[in-house]
Order: sequence, then structure tokens, then C-alpha cells
Amino acid sequence: MNLVLQLNTLLEVRDRSEALIDPLELEDLGLQGMADASPPKWHLAHTNWFFETFLLQPHLKGHEPCDPRWAYQFNSYYDSVGDRHPRPQRGLLSRPTVKEILRWRSRVNDGLEELLQAPDETSLQLLELGLQHEQQHQELLLMDLLDGFSRQPLEPCYHREADLSIQTASDGWLSCDEGLVSIGHRGTGFHFDNEGPRHRAWLDGFEIRNDLVSNGAFQAFIADGGYSRPDLWMSEGWSLCQQNGWIGPRYWRGVQEEFTLAGRQPLDPDAPVRHLSWFEADAFARWSDARLPTEAEWEHAAAVHGEALLHSHGVLWQWTASPYRPYPGFVAPPGAIGEYNGKFMSSQFVLRGSCWLTPPGHSRDTYRNFFPPASRWMAAGLRLAR
Amino acid sequence: MNLVLQLNTLLEVRDRSEALIDPLELEDLGLQGMADASPPKWHLAHTNWFFETFLLQPHLKGHEPCDPRWAYQFNSYYDSVGDRHPRPQRGLLSRPTVKEILRWRSRVNDGLEELLQAPDETSLQLLELGLQHEQQHQELLLMDLLDGFSRQPLEPCYHREADLSIQTASDGWLSCDEGLVSIGHRGTGFHFDNEGPRHRAWLDGFEIRNDLVSNGAFQAFIADGGYSRPDLWMSEGWSLCQQNGWIGPRYWRGVQEEFTLAGRQPLDPDAPVRHLSWFEADAFARWSDARLPTEAEWEHAAAVHGEALLHSHGVLWQWTASPYRPYPGFVAPPGAIGEYNGKFMSSQFVLRGSCWLTPPGHSRDTYRNFFPPASRWMAAGLRLAR
Amino acid sequence: MNLVLQLNTLLEVRDRSEALIDPLELEDLGLQGMADASPPKWHLAHTNWFFETFLLQPHLKGHEPCDPRWAYQFNSYYDSVGDRHPRPQRGLLSRPTVKEILRWRSRVNDGLEELLQAPDETSLQLLELGLQHEQQHQELLLMDLLDGFSRQPLEPCYHREADLSIQTASDGWLSCDEGLVSIGHRGTGFHFDNEGPRHRAWLDGFEIRNDLVSNGAFQAFIADGGYSRPDLWMSEGWSLCQQNGWIGPRYWRGVQEEFTLAGRQPLDPDAPVRHLSWFEADAFARWSDARLPTEAEWEHAAAVHGEALLHSHGVLWQWTASPYRPYPGFVAPPGAIGEYNGKFMSSQFVLRGSCWLTPPGHSRDTYRNFFPPASRWMAAGLRLAR
Amino acid sequence: MNLVLQLNTLLEVRDRSEALIDPLELEDLGLQGMADASPPKWHLAHTNWFFETFLLQPHLKGHEPCDPRWAYQFNSYYDSVGDRHPRPQRGLLSRPTVKEILRWRSRVNDGLEELLQAPDETSLQLLELGLQHEQQHQELLLMDLLDGFSRQPLEPCYHREADLSIQTASDGWLSCDEGLVSIGHRGTGFHFDNEGPRHRAWLDGFEIRNDLVSNGAFQAFIADGGYSRPDLWMSEGWSLCQQNGWIGPRYWRGVQEEFTLAGRQPLDPDAPVRHLSWFEADAFARWSDARLPTEAEWEHAAAVHGEALLHSHGVLWQWTASPYRPYPGFVAPPGAIGEYNGKFMSSQFVLRGSCWLTPPGHSRDTYRNFFPPASRWMAAGLRLAR
Repeated sequence: MNLVLQLNTLLEVRDRSEALIDPLELEDLGLQGMADASPPKWHLAHTNWFFETFLLQPHLKGHEPCDPRWAYQFNSYYDSVGDRHPRPQRGLLSRPTVKEILRWRSRVNDGLEELLQAPDETSLQLLELGLQHEQQHQELLLMDLLDGFSRQPLEPCYHREADLSIQTASDGWLSCDEGLVSIGHRGTGFHFDNEGPRHRAWLDGFEIRNDLVSNGAFQAFIADGGYSRPDLWMSEGWSLCQQNGWIGPRYWRGVQEEFTLAGRQPLDPDAPVRHLSWFEADAFARWSDARLPTEAEWEHAAAVHGEALLHSHGVLWQWTASPYRPYPGFVAPPGAIGEYNGKFMSSQFVLRGSCWLTPPGHSRDTYRNFFPPASRWMAAGLRLAR
Repeated sequence: MNLVLQLNTLLEVRDRSEALIDPLELEDLGLQGMADASPPKWHLAHTNWFFETFLLQPHLKGHEPCDPRWAYQFNSYYDSVGDRHPRPQRGLLSRPTVKEILRWRSRVNDGLEELLQAPDETSLQLLELGLQHEQQHQELLLMDLLDGFSRQPLEPCYHREADLSIQTASDGWLSCDEGLVSIGHRGTGFHFDNEGPRHRAWLDGFEIRNDLVSNGAFQAFIADGGYSRPDLWMSEGWSLCQQNGWIGPRYWRGVQEEFTLAGRQPLDPDAPVRHLSWFEADAFARWSDARLPTEAEWEHAAAVHGEALLHSHGVLWQWTASPYRPYPGFVAPPGAIGEYNGKFMSSQFVLRGSCWLTPPGHSRDTYRNFFPPASRWMAAGLRLAR
Repeated sequence: MNLVLQLNTLLEVRDRSEALIDPLELEDLGLQGMADASPPKWHLAHTNWFFETFLLQPHLKGHEPCDPRWAYQFNSYYDSVGDRHPRPQRGLLSRPTVKEILRWRSRVNDGLEELLQAPDETSLQLLELGLQHEQQHQELLLMDLLDGFSRQPLEPCYHREADLSIQTASDGWLSCDEGLVSIGHRGTGFHFDNEGPRHRAWLDGFEIRNDLVSNGAFQAFIADGGYSRPDLWMSEGWSLCQQNGWIGPRYWRGVQEEFTLAGRQPLDPDAPVRHLSWFEADAFARWSDARLPTEAEWEHAAAVHGEALLHSHGVLWQWTASPYRPYPGFVAPPGAIGEYNGKFMSSQFVLRGSCWLTPPGHSRDTYRNFFPPASRWMAAGLRLAR
Repeated sequence: MNLVLQLNTLLEVRDRSEALIDPLELEDLGLQGMADASPPKWHLAHTNWFFETFLLQPHLKGHEPCDPRWAYQFNSYYDSVGDRHPRPQRGLLSRPTVKEILRWRSRVNDGLEELLQAPDETSLQLLELGLQHEQQHQELLLMDLLDGFSRQPLEPCYHREADLSIQTASDGWLSCDEGLVSIGHRGTGFHFDNEGPRHRAWLDGFEIRNDLVSNGAFQAFIADGGYSRPDLWMSEGWSLCQQNGWIGPRYWRGVQEEFTLAGRQPLDPDAPVRHLSWFEADAFARWSDARLPTEAEWEHAAAVHGEALLHSHGVLWQWTASPYRPYPGFVAPPGAIGEYNGKFMSSQFVLRGSCWLTPPGHSRDTYRNFFPPASRWMAAGLRLAR
């Protein structure tokens, strides 16, 4: 990638973040619906902090960093670079204002442009990581916003065109033979550390569904008592279901409507079901006499079947049967960058694919997304295997 | 009071609420620092809801009320008029926007003006209650804001001139003889229901301090181990002190600085100590070989000594030794208005006087303010008795 | 009281404690149903610790105290004499065994007998306090046991004869004129520090019910929606009622049966209602167009009306309208003994009278019992005033 | 196995459970130190309930079952057979008494003997499952007891001879080549459902330590700041470490002593370290520039190296790197027996081997034990891989 292209990409990604808040009121930008989510404003500031902290401060002579208290506020989870504001209290940060944050972003953009005049290899790598990081936060910003909006009696609409509109195909299974396969990223393109090392894995023969599970299928699960039969659930999931009073996916309003980024909408039975926890996905699969695919199966099926594996990208993240653990031989890089992925490899499950909120160019078949199994606010659905 | 005067008072009080948010950023208006506090925006909306619900809807023909979901959002605690949004989640209400709320306030002002053309007695009484209510929220808005700002690393300043600047007099005691006294509001002026009925009470002879306790005296208490000697504390207060790690008043930063509405400021040893719980006030009094006055003693001393009881008003609310309970013969009025004060008469203590944030004309010697004994965010100090 | 009498009283009280556990299985003696309650074994040990710590150690030369870890375990709340085992974990103390505790009690009895050979005045006072203290724990032991038993599916019976069997009289009111009255203990007999100083108080004229409220009356309250009408409740009580799902007194099973120390029994509509919180008593009184008496009213009515105030003692503790606060002029004694009552004078309400579990000779008209208003496990009922 | 042998085994296992409580005081038998643990008495009753519910009731005509409330009390987690007493409240069950439970056990033994006169195949399988189940509870009973005893200031000793006494060998690594291996139980002997199906897995070449990690090595980890360096920990583990104030393994008292079933003992630096969470094991491994073995690696190494894999059994359960998930093709059996293992396959990690408290004859190389990664009270240690 030459320097002009890089600069264009940089500015495109940075601008896209700011464009995301265009449809919002200023009042919405500080909204934090729950501890797991962050206000839109915080996402804008944190991604900026990432570039400043890891790229400009060490690599651009003369760059003057923000107030150290801003750094304290906008560090997410990097222990190596210091203490930080408690995550559940991000919504309390009425200052700095949005205007101040946008000015800071602009100042960081200037720094990045300057650095791009004559970048070294490390800077280029960090730049790419920073851009990928910002893209991840772009989809998080929208998922978090949906959570925050869903908690308000007025049910605000983000944008009339913001929702997914897609239909799943009628059922069909794709077969994969048993064999020793290679899993993980190969080649020189960008990938996160957790996508490697590429390694071998044995897979028994299996079948995987050609498309995602639909709302209609999930309505049938509910009608058949899916939320009141403990035999379908993991014990931990059943407890959560009882405690939290789950009776349907996170944003369903009854069984005919759903709250979305475009406001409350009728449920389309053919659209893919979404915003459910791993436990609900797992229970649904058991009810269907099927199971979730492992992440290796998913990746292998994508390689073998290509586009026949419908909606593998750009629709919904897809829960897999695989706990999020390091690949054989994985070692986290030293320092703060090593905290990016490596320290989260317990008590989470892997999701594969990408979703309609994922920025263009940000998805890969080897991409490993991960969330705790009780999480429901992300744009996640499921695909069956057997 | 004639109708023109009433209209003037009305608009003055209403305008004052809106003027309070002038020094703030829009981002600050949704800030809720803790469950006990409310965002500035919510105070503006709730006081408006109060007028609309209790005055315009029943008494102004043709008044079109707000969206019922707004009513749900801005009802504080009136069970009789329906369900409500959970108090700890008021900070999540990014909608309606501030602009929409101000428009609604203006519409309610119009309705009130119209009603004032030919008001009946009930309307006038409700109008007065609504204004007093709005004044209460004016001081709450600022106390709540101080709490919210105090939780931010950037320590925002509300206004450079917003802080109290006053010094306490050197020590002196005022005597009151024993006797049967009358307590509670008399006459025809406005008062809250809980200030009556006026009734007799026997008081033993006592002395009361002529002024409030100072920061300097409280520094001496701390230096003498006040926060580490359980013998000075109520058992309940000692537990709270340990659990919460209290080592000084709510907004002290160390023992030489204090966070205020004017930002972080040096502690003036002669200024009155403030933002402490009843438990701290009570422990300090015990350490001083004194005690807090009962509310009857306070009211009687104010009547007997007048201005010699320095800073009885306009500086700090003053904790008393009296739990908040009904006066003999008190019966809450029927309906929603009866919920205003009567249902809070357990597990709270009475504070007397008023504070520098109290709107002009809002204080009376018979005024009974009340808060749970662990509360520290209000502008409360103390005065000793013996 | 001469020495022989004292020794007899001593041994009688001490033996009575041990007799209380006769009907129990050894397994029951470690049972702690909730944080507020203590196991029977703990009561036996704690009362012994009290004598040893405050009487034998300072006053009986040569007395060898228990293992300091026992002292740590059986100190209830005396900060002045050291740290202690957390109250909610008293049920985890399987050691020392009951046998060891009984041996220790016997050794302390020997010490007390020895001390009584030639006691000084202080020792005699502490002895009396220790006995009164042990009597308080005797009734607590049974109340706590009832709580523990109530949590077991097998609903154990303590003793077939252990329950109260009494009927309330038909309604009648007793009048008291207004006037200045004297309240608090007088004379030289034993009393707790919180019963004094005797002092004057003004009472408006009032009426008090001649007997306690019955189960039948409370059934009518429930039938009339008493547990679903927020207008009858203090706000704090209503929240608790909702959170905890209260639909009747603590030990009612439905509205026709009650769990008792004699096992599950039919509810006698004429028997006094019991095991309810202050909030329920207060709501019932409001529903009855009446109120709870203040503690001064109760004490005055007992003085004026004597036995016409039926069941003032020996049936149920009676909630009053009075928060537990010090009488005018009260100062807690210095040292550990001062912790006995004085540090609990916040966030509790006074109960007057005594109950059927109160040991003989332990009740007085000036006796001030106190519990937090949400407490329901004690043998408390109510009497109306107006 | 012929019938006489079966009967002998049966009685041996059943007697062993009862022998375990011989060294205890009756007071200890109801002790529940925390929600995750159960009282000794409950283990005796639950294992009996298992035989009665799954074997005698369906298969022995005329067997009269216990009071249904006992069944409610002693059902652990089987949703299919009805509701149950909440786990955290098992310590509140003072009834039935130990004596009653022992009588019930004896009655169930009689029934089992009778059934063994002419058993069908299903009964024999359930009998074996019941015996294995009872053996599992034998080791749990002692682990739970250690937890309960550890919470008491008196630090009771279960039995002077009850502790492990073993030393680890000096360091050495065993190599395994890469290859396709078979994992899981084969053959006809008893095994739990989760040990199969036997299936193929690819393993890269690896090395595994010949012995367990020692106390001395763990002391070095602590001395090197192991508990204060977030870079060594999973993020989730680091949070727990901070919240709970972990500074060493669960039962260490300082760094030189340890609380054990034989009371407080000096730490032997050569003995294997134990009673640590998966997070501590994982952090230690990272500090050692190594990692935990996967469960497939462990099983394969045991198969390849046999006794050279020192202390693979009978010393400590060994944490692996593997989340507890079903083997390919696993389907839980229908009905209550299917709840035995299958519903726990989320948010736990697998431990391999067995420990010194495991009953003789109860261990296998394919045995999959599992606990949540934060658990520390079980007899778990670790072995490194790389």
C-alpha cells in the first residue's frame, strides 16, 4: 500500500467514525445503557487515545499529548499504560465535551498525517492496528447505542435505514468430509494475533447449515416451550434464564415485534434471529437435534464451500461451540499490544463471520470475535451443524 | 397576593430554574452521579410534569398533556398517578432532548398564565405548592450536579461565583429556659403539611451554639482520630464509615482542599464544615462533649434568639437530633398530594434552616427538611447543643 | 438482696438458659437462619463470655479465662474489648462443641459463686447486668430458633407446649388527658441505662386500645388489599414489601395457618397478630384510621390504667410510633458497658411491654426494647392509639 | 462381576462414606462453609437419595420411599425429578438428624441387597453409577469439610493422618511427538458419559513435565510479584485476584504454613502446591514460560509415558488448558441421568488425574473432572507443558 493510499484509508476510517454520530442528538452521545457498553462519545475518544498513546507519543517527535486525566478516562483496559476510569462509570464523563473530543481527534489526525510523511515499519504496523481497532469500535458504538436506546420508554430511532434487511434461504445442509485441516490465518495481510498461528486440526465428518436460523424457526422454539424446558439448556444458562426472566431474544417486544436501530419494527419470520446469548443459541440447537459448529468447522466449511455458505459475512456474527482459547503455539506479544486479545481467553465463546454493522473490508474467514456466553446485546445469530 | 404579582412570581421562579443551567454544557444536563441524584434535565422536566399533572390536567380545560411516556419518565414517586421510570436510571433518558423539554416548559407556562386569568382557590393553592416544589428542585439540581461533577476526573467548575463564602463566629452559647413551648407553623402563609399541626412540647433548659461548626473544628476532630474511634459513633454509622472508607466530609480532597461548585478550592478553616452525614455530625458532637439540638430546640431557639442564632438560614442545612416523624395530630391529605411528605416519615432525620443554594424566599423557621442519616451530598452542616 | 438470694437467682437464671435447649437435637444448636439471628449454642457461649469478660477477668483474682479465640468468637459487638467473628458467620462455628461450652459455663458459674463470697458494689452491679443480659438472650434464643426452624421444609416443632395461647378482648379504648407527664425509670431497682434519665414530656390527650390487635383484624386488613395499597404504607416500607413479596406476617402459612414453636398451627382469629414489621403495624394502623402510640403515651397509659391496659406484658412486644433515641440528658457510661444500649440509637423503633418468651421478672413498664422497622422475626405485635 | 462381589463392593463403598465422619463431632456434620460446599450430613443423605430415587423406586417393588420433603432437601440438581432446596441453604437443614439419616441409609442398603438378589441389566448399571457417584461425594465431603474448617478461628483438625505427604521430583520434561491420537474411554469398563465417544484429535509435538509444580516453585512465583503483575494473568483472573485479595493459594497461612485436614502445618517446599484456581495455575505457567497441557495432551502423555508421568493419580487433580466441552458426537442420555454431566459443559475447565482423597479404584486416565476457573477449594494442583 503506498503512502497516499494509506493516508486516504486513514482519513476514510476516521471520518466514518464521526459520520456515525451524525443522526444522533448531542444528548445521546453520553449514553451508557449498562456496564458492558460505552457511550458513543467514549468510543470516539478511546480510539483517538489509542492512536495517540501507541503511535504518536512514541513515534512522532514533538507531539503534545492530551491532559493525562483524559488518558485516564479513555484507556479501556491496558494495564501496562496505567490506571483508568472504571468501565461502569463511563456514562458519568460529561467532560470533555463532544466538541473538545472532535478537536482532539482532528489534532491526532494531523499528527498521523505528519507521521505518514516518512513512516517506519513499526509505525505502519501500529497504524494498521489502530485503524482495525477503530473499525471494531465502529460496530461496537452502534451495538452499544442500540442497548442504550432500548432502555428508554421513548424507543428512539437511530436512522430509518440503519437496520438489516435480509432473508434466510430455505433449509439445506452442506457436507464436509473428515480429515486433517489447517486452521488460522496465513499469508501477509493484516490479521489479529489471535488468528494465528496457523495449525493443523482433525475434524470428523460433519454437516453445516447453508444459512442462518430464522426468526420463524425461533418462534417455533418458543412456542414449543423452549424457554421453560431445563432439559434443553446448559445448567448455567438455565439459571440465568430464570434469574433474568428471559422469554425471547434481547430486543424482541413480544413475539411479533423487535426493537432495532430503525425503531420498533415488525418481526420478519424469514429474517435471521439475532441478539441472543450463546445459551439460547445452544438450547435452540439442542431442540433442533443439532448443535453449534466448532470454530474450526466453521472456518473449514467457509474454505470448502465458499459462497454456498450463505450469509457467512455481513449479516450476523455466528456463535460457535468453541470456547475462546489460544491456538497451539500462540504467545501474546510483549507490552500493551499484547493485552489486545490475549488476556481475554477464558470464559468466552468464539463467534465467526461478521455482521451488517461491521465496516466494509473488516471481515475475514479467520476472524475470531468473542463474547461471554450470557451476552445478548451484540449482533449475533447462529447457524446449525450436525 | 394579586394576580399580576402571582404571575410575576410564577415566571420568576420558572425562569430561575432555566437560568440555573446556563453555565452548563449540554453534555452535563443528562448527568446522574448516583441513584439518589437526578440529572439537571430531569429536574426541569419533573417540575414541569408536576404543574401539568396536578394543576393543568385537572383544572385547565383543553390543555393537551405530554406524551404519556414522558409522564412515566418524569413522575418521581407518586404512586397514585401511575407507574414510573426507575429512579437509578434517570441518567439513561437521553430523550426527550433538552430543547424539547424547554419547549414543553414554555407550553406549560402558557397554560399556567391562562389558568391565572380566573383561578379558583384550589388552583391557587396548587400553584403555590408547584412553585415551592420547583424551588426545592432548584437547590436539589445544584446539589445533585455537585455530586455528578465530583465523580469526574476533570473536576468541572459550575461557576466561579457559585460557592458559599462565609465565616463562622468564634464560639458562644445561647441559653433557653425550660418550659412548655409551641412548635410548628402558625398563621395563614404557605407551609408544607409536615410543618403542622402546631402543638405543644416540653423542653428542658438547654444551650445552643450561636454559630455553625467550622472546618477548623472538624480538622481537629479528624486529627484526634475521629474517624477511627468507634466509641464516638452510632454502631450503624461506624459500620458505614468502615465500609465506605470515610475519612472526611464528602467533598474534602485531603484535609486542605474541597471540591465545590466553583471547582477545587482551598479549605477555609473558618468556613462552616459541610457535606457530612448525620452520623459524622453526631460523632463530632459526642467528641465535643455536646450533642445535636432536637428540632424543637432549634425552632424554639430561633424564635427566642432571632438573629443572635447566627447563620440559621442561607448558609447550610443543619442536622438535628430528631428523627423525621409526624407531629401530633398530623394526617396526610388524601390523594397524590398526600404523598408529598407524609410517606417519608421513617428512617430519616430532620434538618433545619436552609442553605446558600436555597432560593430566596423559600426558607422558614418551621421548615422541616429530611434525609437519611447516611446521606452526604446535600449542603448540610451542624450546630451544637448541650 | 442478700447473698444467698443472689446466688440462687444467679443459678436459676443460668440453669434456665441450659434448660431451654433440652427439647432440641444437638444438630439444632448450631443453626443460624439469617445474619440477624444467632445459633442457640452461640447464645449460651456469648452470655458466658459476658460474665467472664466483664466480671470475672477484672474482679476475680486467679480466674483463668477461655482461649482468646473463643473470646473472639463470642464477643457480640463490643468494640472496646477487641475484634470479633463476623455476625453472619456465627453458624459456621462448629467448634467449640456444645459439651465444651457447657463445661465452660460451669467453670464460670464456679467463678461467680466464688466472687459472691465477698462481692464489692461494682461486682454486684455487673452481676445483675449479666443476669439481665442473659435473660434477654433467653428470649432471643427462642425467637432466633423459630426463624431457623421456619426455613426448613420439615418444619420442626420445638415443644408442643411452647406456643402462646391467649385471646384478645373485644374492642375498647382507654382515655388519657393531656398534661405534662414524667417518663423513664425512677427509684433504685435495676434498669437499663436507656430507661433514664426520668424526664418530663408533654402529651396531648389521646386514647389507646385496651388490647392488642387480633389475627382476625389483620385478616380483614389483608382481605381489604392491605398489602397492595401503597397509600397505606411508608414509602420505605412499601418498597420492602414489594421487594420481599410480603403478603402477610412473617410466619403465616396462607391466611389460616401459622408456623410456631409448637410447629404449624391453625390461626386463631382472636389471638393477637404477631411477627410483623413496624411497617406492617404502621400500615395496619393507618388502615384502621388510627395510629401507633408513642412510647411516652404507652408508658403513661400503663401508669394511669394499670391492668385495664390488657396484655401490656407477657404476650407480645408492642411496636410504638417512637424512633429509638436517647432521653434528654442521657449519656452512655464510659467503656464497654456503654456500648450495651447507647450506640444503637439510630434507625430503630421502640417496642414496649414484653412477650410470652420473656423470662419471668424481666419486664418493666419503662423497658425500651428496639429493633429496625423492617424486622419481623421477633415476637412483636401492636396496639392502636388515636 | 458376580453378585457376591457386587454386594461386597456396594457395602464397602457405603460403609466408607459413614466411616469418613467418624473423626468428626456431631456439630461438624451440618457445617456448610459456603454456597459451593455441602455439609457432611447432606452428602450422606444425597448419595442415599440417589440410590433410592433412581434405583429403588423404579426397580424395587414395594420399596417405601422417604418423606417427599426429604427428597426435596436432598435432590442436588436434577430438574427432571422435581424442585429442590436452594443449595446455599443446605447448612440450615438441622433436620433430619444424623441418626435419622443413618437409619435411612441402612434401609436403603437393605433394599439394594434385596434388589441384588435378581438384578436386571439396567439395575446393575444404575447400581454402578450410584456407587461411582457416592465415591465422588466421598472426596467432595472432605474438600467441603476443609473449607468449612478453614473458616473457623479454632482451625479444627479432621485427623492427624488425613493429610497428603508426598514430595515432587526434581524437574524433568517428557516428550510426545506430533500425530493423530485417539482420546476418550474405550472398552467395556465403567466410565462416565462425558469420557466418550472415543475420537481422534491431532496433537502437535509437545513436552510435559514429569511431576507436579511444588510449593517451593510457587513461593518463587509469589516472591517475584506473581500476584501483583497483571501481565501474567487472564483479565478475568486478575479482576478476581484484586477483588478477593488473593495473595497465595486458598489455604496458605502466610508463605510458610498451610491449613490442612490435619490442622495447620508447615509448608513443605517439595510438596506439590494445591488449592489454587485455574487462573493462578495459568498465571504461574505463563510466569514459567510454559503453559498448562490440554486435556488431550495429558491423556496422551499418560498413555505414552505411563509411570514416568509421576503422580498422575492419587495426589492432586491437575488443571488443564481445556474448557469443559462435549467430545465430538457426545449426546447426553435422556432423562435425569442425562443431567449428571452433560448440562455443565460451559464456563468450566477440565482437571485430569485424581487426588489423595479420591477413593481407591475410582480413577482413570480418561476421567474428566471439571470446575469453574475461580474455584480454589478442591484438591487441585498443576503440571506444566510447553
